[in-house]
Amino acid sequence: MSNPPPLAGGPQGPQALRPLLDTVLDALHDGATARGGPLPAGGPHTVTTRLRELTGDPLPHHGTGPDTALRTLVQALAEGAADPADPLCAAHLHCPPLALAAAADLAASALNPSMDSWDQAPAASALETLVTDALAHEVYGATGHPGQPRRPGRPGHPGQPGRPDQPDRPGHPQALVTTGGTEANQLALLLARESHASEGPLQLITGANAHHSLPRAAWLLGLPDPVTVPAPTGTLDPAALDEALTDLPGPKLVAATAGTTDAGLIDPLPEIADVCEHHGARLHIDAAYGAGLLFSPTRRTQLTGLDRAATVTLDLHKLGWQPVAAGLLVVRDPADLTPLTHHADYLNADDDTEAGLPDLLGRSLRTTRRPDILKIAVTLKALGRTGLGTLVDQVCDHAQEFAATLHAHPGFDLYDTPTLSTVLFRPHGVSDEHIAHIRRTLLTRGRAVLGRARMDGRLWLKATLLNPHTQPGDLAQLLKLVEGNTSR
Amino acid sequence: MSNPPPLAGGPQGPQALRPLLDTVLDALHDGATARGGPLPAGGPHTVTTRLRELTGDPLPHHGTGPDTALRTLVQALAEGAADPADPLCAAHLHCPPLALAAAADLAASALNPSMDSWDQAPAASALETLVTDALAHEVYGATGHPGQPRRPGRPGHPGQPGRPDQPDRPGHPQALVTTGGTEANQLALLLARESHASEGPLQLITGANAHHSLPRAAWLLGLPDPVTVPAPTGTLDPAALDEALTDLPGPKLVAATAGTTDAGLIDPLPEIADVCEHHGARLHIDAAYGAGLLFSPTRRTQLTGLDRAATVTLDLHKLGWQPVAAGLLVVRDPADLTPLTHHADYLNADDDTEAGLPDLLGRSLRTTRRPDILKIAVTLKALGRTGLGTLVDQVCDHAQEFAATLHAHPGFDLYDTPTLSTVLFRPHGVSDEHIAHIRRTLLTRGRAVLGRARMDGRLWLKATLLNPHTQPGDLAQLLKLVEGNTSR
Repeated sequence: MSNPPPLAGGPQGPQALRPLLDTVLDALHDGATARGGPLPAGGPHTVTTRLRELTGDPLPHHGTGPDTALRTLVQALAEGAADPADPLCAAHLHCPPLALAAAADLAASALNPSMDSWDQAPAASALETLVTDALAHEVYGATGHPGQPRRPGRPGHPGQPGRPDQPDRPGHPQALVTTGGTEANQLALLLARESHASEGPLQLITGANAHHSLPRAAWLLGLPDPVTVPAPTGTLDPAALDEALTDLPGPKLVAATAGTTDAGLIDPLPEIADVCEHHGARLHIDAAYGAGLLFSPTRRTQLTGLDRAATVTLDLHKLGWQPVAAGLLVVRDPADLTPLTHHADYLNADDDTEAGLPDLLGRSLRTTRRPDILKIAVTLKALGRTGLGTLVDQVCDHAQEFAATLHAHPGFDLYDTPTLSTVLFRPHGVSDEHIAHIRRTLLTRGRAVLGRARMDGRLWLKATLLNPHTQPGDLAQLLKLVEGNTSR
Repeated sequence: MSNPPPLAGGPQGPQALRPLLDTVLDALHDGATARGGPLPAGGPHTVTTRLRELTGDPLPHHGTGPDTALRTLVQALAEGAADPADPLCAAHLHCPPLALAAAADLAASALNPSMDSWDQAPAASALETLVTDALAHEVYGATGHPGQPRRPGRPGHPGQPGRPDQPDRPGHPQALVTTGGTEANQLALLLARESHASEGPLQLITGANAHHSLPRAAWLLGLPDPVTVPAPTGTLDPAALDEALTDLPGPKLVAATAGTTDAGLIDPLPEIADVCEHHGARLHIDAAYGAGLLFSPTRRTQLTGLDRAATVTLDLHKLGWQPVAAGLLVVRDPADLTPLTHHADYLNADDDTEAGLPDLLGRSLRTTRRPDILKIAVTLKALGRTGLGTLVDQVCDHAQEFAATLHAHPGFDLYDTPTLSTVLFRPHGVSDEHIAHIRRTLLTRGRAVLGRARMDGRLWLKATLLNPHTQPGDLAQLLKLVEGNTSR
């Protein structure tokens, strides 16, 4: 019988990993050097053709061995990456991860704990509880601010909240780890659906500025089409919300946004919370982007009202510099987690739970789960609140400075002073079609990755500044590139 | 302004990562050595207390810096891990990842491509298409075997299939990357729901032996409670299924299993496919565990009938030796993907799609997505079909040999000859309560991680053999441990 390839775990794992990681680091370096810019030149067809040439048969009969496979594929991926560590890659809420977070993530892969039962993740599950409790505390403080009476659970789906140390009574706020803001928003909607199951189908109400994952989640969960409140200014208007809620029957969930995808704007949270309270509507706040402000002593007041939501979406692969995935849903009232209680004899048999083995299955809709909490834990511990706050302030300051430059520049229109780290701008006097064309040209020439957003009925170029290492010179170069492609 | 910590990406990333990875590897080694067994001794309270002591404040005001944070937390996680690389950690479908796959996964974290738009993942999205097509081909061959007429898409949710090079006509089978078997099963149910949306609510029919994620998915998606067909022998009986489907109104999805969680059994797929065809029911096969047999030239015939399903769940973090997550849903008819079509102007504006930028948003219900395909691609390329097949055969052979030992041993009862790599056994003449107690004792003493399963009305100990490095002596030791805890 042939000798199987070495494993990543166990006492021998590190020794097996060391030479393979050397290969990976060399390939990452060579790929980035070969690319020589924020993304590969040539556009989709060229990139795909090159990738296919380098890869060859993806499932050969006989393998190439680990060294060739790692060198070839990692180098191809690096050469063909849109790398957010390049200051000219600034389109999306797509952050450049910190080296320390990526290094921590290796340990998650090597140990491979699975978060669905204690006997697959003894320490990892304890770490998850510790860190998610700390993050929930960051949002809600010690006790939460329960603004609504609790509702009975879904009939026929009874049980204890997922965590055995949380009996069915008001307790401290908790957070669930998700694959990102999208899954956190889905979960928020699901918890609301179940919380109000006896009162009829849940109606979601969002602003037109809300993330697309919210209406998609309503579709997924079999709920009615959402009521969409127009948001011409980019934020949800409390008066328009009040009007939309008036005479709307049945249970209601309002989803507000702290950090819109298009413009980085924050809805007026206290006023929205007041309107929700007045109409008996439950409030969810999607703070996937904006929650990073919690770490900034000067900027966290921008999030006043966040703790009035029943649930809050966080996403540390945005303003948290984590590799994907690093989402969380923070839940004010732990009783809201009861509907996630789920039984599978091989993972949480009653007698095992009674004997003290923690029941982890009610912490997610996934079963097997990677311990994404590890990289988050290492980052929080290494940087502290102060270090993270400094990074948040740096990128928000970059955005302010870039906006000031644009404002003073006769060749550009600035949409508005940035709230977070997103800057919308457009070359003066050109058409929407040409704006879109400039963006695609910079992309296909491998020069810059800029986003796009429609605001005020016009199309804008979008720079989402998430790289704390970006220098003023980088942004000046970005403007030169746009100018250089503006002439028709 | 202080100097931000180094990033993982860019040409300088590898240099920043190198010393941090050294810290991680040392901490993994030291943690595994300190643990000195398959899992930490002492049970949940002891492990949690130790983890909290080592971690301290998870969100301090001032950070410790990267080296201390990495060393402390990674070592704590390794010391408190249930490590599937230890042959005595054999409870669950929780595989020990290959070192080469974990090394590849580091590159995913460092480059941080996000799979929701081409301009965040130029090469990664091309690699995903290449590898998922190869895996879909492995299940269905070149063209698939469309056994059913295609249905119209969901009204009000029209559009093209997610991939722009796949117009709305019969095409080749495709695969979507998921976080695991659970998400793949959810997606299979969603695609079936949408495919039959005009005909009324979809009815799911499963055997009692099916994975718990299937009824949970029905609940999630707002579908009626599933019809559960009793499966006293551990597999879905075609005659019982036929009876359950007879006179059942409305659209129907039957979910069969190739590799049950409890016993590793494979439902009689061709007979089930015949019954489904007869009743006009759509067929999904959850092959999260069993699909690894596709790589074994001698064992792949056990999966005959797999290609008659409309959708098939694969999961390479089981018999594929990947770090979590590595799930896939293979879809025979690409038109079935149409309901996943989704529009978000910042990611797939019409004019961008028309200009040739690939539209990736219809490949998942998630938005941001880690490129889990990279580690899979490196593994397939490094080992080839032959290398993977050898690993599959090794663990299945281990199971046969272990079963033979148990069969010959007067102190143990063997449930049955294993179909895959799961062996159910129990010490002769002891009660169910005592079986459960033995398992918990081995766990809390840190000696072995065994699973449990109820079959034939009795509780069995479950050894899921997924470690190709396991030696006969390891399994002999496992039996000694069980024997040593059997006396009352």
